Amino acid sequence: MNATLHPTAIISPKATLGTGVSVGPFSIIHGDVEIGDGATIDGHCEIGYPTPLAEGRPLVLGRGARIRSHSVFYQGSSFGEGLVTGHRVTVRELTTAGRSFQIGTMADIQGYCEIGHHVRTQSSVTIGQKSRIGNFVWLFPGALLTNDPTPPSDELLGVILEDYVVVGVKATLLPGVRIGRGSFVAAHSLVGTDMVAGSMVSGSPAKRVCDVSVVRMKNDVRAKAYPWAGRFTRGYPDEVVQAWAQGKFDFEF
Amino acid sequence: MNATLHPTAIISPKATLGTGVSVGPFSIIHGDVEIGDGATIDGHCEIGYPTPLAEGRPLVLGRGARIRSHSVFYQGSSFGEGLVTGHRVTVRELTTAGRSFQIGTMADIQGYCEIGHHVRTQSSVTIGQKSRIGNFVWLFPGALLTNDPTPPSDELLGVILEDYVVVGVKATLLPGVRIGRGSFVAAHSLVGTDMVAGSMVSGSPAKRVCDVSVVRMKNDVRAKAYPWAGRFTRGYPDEVVQAWAQGKFDFEF
Amino acid sequence: MNATLHPTAIISPKATLGTGVSVGPFSIIHGDVEIGDGATIDGHCEIGYPTPLAEGRPLVLGRGARIRSHSVFYQGSSFGEGLVTGHRVTVRELTTAGRSFQIGTMADIQGYCEIGHHVRTQSSVTIGQKSRIGNFVWLFPGALLTNDPTPPSDELLGVILEDYVVVGVKATLLPGVRIGRGSFVAAHSLVGTDMVAGSMVSGSPAKRVCDVSVVRMKNDVRAKAYPWAGRFTRGYPDEVVQAWAQGKFDFEF
Repeated sequence: MNATLHPTAIISPKATLGTGVSVGPFSIIHGDVEIGDGATIDGHCEIGYPTPLAEGRPLVLGRGARIRSHSVFYQGSSFGEGLVTGHRVTVRELTTAGRSFQIGTMADIQGYCEIGHHVRTQSSVTIGQKSRIGNFVWLFPGALLTNDPTPPSDELLGVILEDYVVVGVKATLLPGVRIGRGSFVAAHSLVGTDMVAGSMVSGSPAKRVCDVSVVRMKNDVRAKAYPWAGRFTRGYPDEVVQAWAQGKFDFEF
Repeated sequence: MNATLHPTAIISPKATLGTGVSVGPFSIIHGDVEIGDGATIDGHCEIGYPTPLAEGRPLVLGRGARIRSHSVFYQGSSFGEGLVTGHRVTVRELTTAGRSFQIGTMADIQGYCEIGHHVRTQSSVTIGQKSRIGNFVWLFPGALLTNDPTPPSDELLGVILEDYVVVGVKATLLPGVRIGRGSFVAAHSLVGTDMVAGSMVSGSPAKRVCDVSVVRMKNDVRAKAYPWAGRFTRGYPDEVVQAWAQGKFDFEF
Repeated sequence: MNATLHPTAIISPKATLGTGVSVGPFSIIHGDVEIGDGATIDGHCEIGYPTPLAEGRPLVLGRGARIRSHSVFYQGSSFGEGLVTGHRVTVRELTTAGRSFQIGTMADIQGYCEIGHHVRTQSSVTIGQKSRIGNFVWLFPGALLTNDPTPPSDELLGVILEDYVVVGVKATLLPGVRIGRGSFVAAHSLVGTDMVAGSMVSGSPAKRVCDVSVVRMKNDVRAKAYPWAGRFTRGYPDEVVQAWAQGKFDFEF
């Protein structure tokens, strides 16, 4: 593997770097950092940003992480293998995520979150403190998970997204809302109430419009659009895609 | 004080730095800049970005400023002591702010604004040109203050936020709107008309729903949520907190 | 011309730089890049970010480009002369734009787009893949062009904005929508249907409210606000402004 630590990068001797790790120009790697084998950190990043809020815990990036330029990760969070980010993401302290987490450009993950496996966000997503996100969840550009019912306060209630939920562009989820498995929250919705599994959710304030199974593909009205797993498979591991093809949607990770 | 000017930082000899100022790796400090004692500038920042629109005025950062990474401040603006920013904030020319201004990650402050004391924004806030913001105002993620009633034009009308106003997530305030003291603009609202003091504002288009004093805490329906000052005190100076406890909400700064 | 290649900049010997090109501190210029005469690249940028999706095509920045700090341009896109950007813009692969494209701070242009001449975006705009934008179009802060009718999918339908369209702050355009020439989409709208030329569009879901010619200036109710071309002329070339004054709004570029 063509590993490179660019000579302009500033890498703490206390950082733990696996084999084949690359660090790009002008990046900063602080001391309380553990980076897995084969990870690539682009230029202009700051990894392991120190904070007393991390309670002395390190930042852990699993094997094969791919961090794009100008990103900032705080000390004290932990990510499974296969993390991929866009540019200029911010991830604060004491968040944990499973494998193959994909974070879009300029996403802002505010810390103290629990995130499952194979979660994908697109650009400019904001995930407030104490959010709890299941497996195979999608967040599209500008989606926002809030947490403070009476701002400003310290009584934060995180949003809960169950497995396979899809949150559309610029949708806002109000504090403490739970969105049931496989639901689809439409673009620009403002969601203030819990939604049962399989809900198609839309509006401001948002309501359950119908079951997601009613939604059809734009180019083929006979084809169901949801559940999306199995219909859309790009980038998921073979064993996941094969399980979906057999109607199996729960996994032991 | 453990002040450091990192050897990779590029600091103009014309810049004025107080005692104990720290500048992080790969940051750029231009010449027309005055930084107060004890300020900390993280890495990857550009401070005092030159512009002819600044009319030759310097950038002034008061004592104890804390500028996080990848931020850009233009020449010609001025901030009181205790400025704190998140990452990647942008502040343009000819804006003035009082003491203890807190600017969230990726906030965009577009210049020609007047901002009071103890104002706090969270992430991805946009403050348009000519906004006028009082003391103790809060802006939550994605809040937007506009200014152009007939875009594109040069006839900009700034938004006015009076003291203690709270603007919720993704709320949009239309040009020239004045929000009265202590009002709370709910998440995702679109506000096109002035609001009297103490209004609970919600909807698209937004209306005055009730007096803010009607709103209760989520976890205790007997406890009023607003006015928030005194109920929430984290990070404010002792003299402010004590005054609030005595029912005093106006200050001479 | 006072050209400078800052000694800390990392410039590939394979990059093609015109005369008088400036590159600021800590910027990275990759190999598959062609930069026109007189261009200025600020500090902390990454220009020509490599990607196999670019199909081997270079990044082309026309004469006189002005790229502000912390911006990222991918390999494989092409821009006419006079490109101007704010800070931290992201432009992905295989997008083409005409002359005098202005991109606001933190705008996110996701690739595979066709963009005309004299298009201007303000900050935090998101332009989804496959968008097609005409000449003299405006996008105001937070405007979003989507593309996926049944997310997640690979069946992307880009938004079409015809010449002289104005998209207001935080407006969301749903996949495949076509907005007719000279229409004005009001702030915070959610547009799911095509709009004929000259529409004033507002609401969520958005409707055609009236013809744009009905809209008046805020400070003079006798003055029509739209069409805006000719009323607002700042920064356009003399020949364009003169043509507008003579009632000519179509150009051969």
